[in-house]
Amino acid sequence: MPVFQLIGVDADDTLWHNERLYADAQARLAELLAEYHSPEWVNDRLYQTEMRNLEHFGYGIKAFALSMIETAIQLTEGRISGRELQSLIDLAREMLAADVELLEHVGNTVAHLAGRYPLMVITKGDLRDQELKVARSGLAPHFRHVEILSEKSRESYSILLERHGVPPDRFLMVGNSLRSDILPVLELGARAAYIPHGLTWTHESAEPPPVGRAGYYELEHFGQLPALLERLESEKAE
Amino acid sequence: MPVFQLIGVDADDTLWHNERLYADAQARLAELLAEYHSPEWVNDRLYQTEMRNLEHFGYGIKAFALSMIETAIQLTEGRISGRELQSLIDLAREMLAADVELLEHVGNTVAHLAGRYPLMVITKGDLRDQELKVARSGLAPHFRHVEILSEKSRESYSILLERHGVPPDRFLMVGNSLRSDILPVLELGARAAYIPHGLTWTHESAEPPPVGRAGYYELEHFGQLPALLERLESEKAE
Repeated sequence: MPVFQLIGVDADDTLWHNERLYADAQARLAELLAEYHSPEWVNDRLYQTEMRNLEHFGYGIKAFALSMIETAIQLTEGRISGRELQSLIDLAREMLAADVELLEHVGNTVAHLAGRYPLMVITKGDLRDQELKVARSGLAPHFRHVEILSEKSRESYSILLERHGVPPDRFLMVGNSLRSDILPVLELGARAAYIPHGLTWTHESAEPPPVGRAGYYELEHFGQLPALLERLESEKAE
Repeated sequence: MPVFQLIGVDADDTLWHNERLYADAQARLAELLAEYHSPEWVNDRLYQTEMRNLEHFGYGIKAFALSMIETAIQLTEGRISGRELQSLIDLAREMLAADVELLEHVGNTVAHLAGRYPLMVITKGDLRDQELKVARSGLAPHFRHVEILSEKSRESYSILLERHGVPPDRFLMVGNSLRSDILPVLELGARAAYIPHGLTWTHESAEPPPVGRAGYYELEHFGQLPALLERLESEKAE
């Protein structure tokens, strides 16, 4: 019997590029407001607006678009034009329609792992947007399940594993966010492989667990997953 | 063995008031644009914007807010002020924070049914918003499952029932939208109880099935559900 009964995989910036869409959008917002404020100040205020709106708007591109619009209005004291605000809505539509570009090694590795383990996408954000990205990614046939959560917390992972009948010690989560993919999973007593991504939203960053913490692994890229799993399976066999 | 293995219940305007939030918001948008256009024209153009945005924005309050903002910009040719647009974002936040008010008969009836059948909320819209409303409604303990879909189609009901191991002929869906709660369920060979609500979004309306169509029932209010179920259970016993 393999050690792992289920492998959970985060989607945005673990399977495919995502944060760069937000970074590009932020750059366009900063450009729009260039005559009013510095890019640093715009980014800072946008982040504060996003955090204030998180409780009601949640994650995802629609929430981000509303926060961009609100920031633009506030930072210009309402002087921003309708046409400029329309460009922010158009930007949100472009983001939602953007091509899904897989990260390096992902295509082959996912196909390889799917032959050995049931795989589950575990992501958060807009329901429809995430479903469309899974469909457009071409990876859907390799994933047994797709779970879209409103928040990735110790509790939501616990409910998810219980629903699928998977004990935490037989679950491995893979992702690029310490806050969402790694720390809550380790707290549960499951294992987690952290694959850092160059761009990570401030809200998702956290202190990494100490090196050598039980169940915590850090990889450089997605292609290193099969070797990690082989090692963990053979350790158990010894 | 009871006829029904699972009762699915729509949420917005079946369990609690919802459409009136949208109607109020539309009235405020019409008021905001009163010096430019008639309320009818504003509503009509808003609906067209929503339909155009559905593919990318999906359902829910955030999508609605983006469509309101876009409509306001377009119908004023960009002359609407930042402060007025800010009031539309504030409106979305108010809608998301609004109290959940149960429809008549719902509280008692849900508690009663939960003692006899596993109940499942089946709804669409923003993930986080719908989860929060279930939690705030006080009904969560009576529901075995909560499923939030990006679209309610024959296919999505079919996948859902399969995942829960429920054959269509042992499933009853209850809801106020012919398009989302009734017609796709009847197509699957399951049964559906339609409880019309005074206010229904144009997009959700459809021709009702012919009276007497197998598996289709129409009720005046939620409190009539237990009697319908008793009748259906006793018909089977005969």
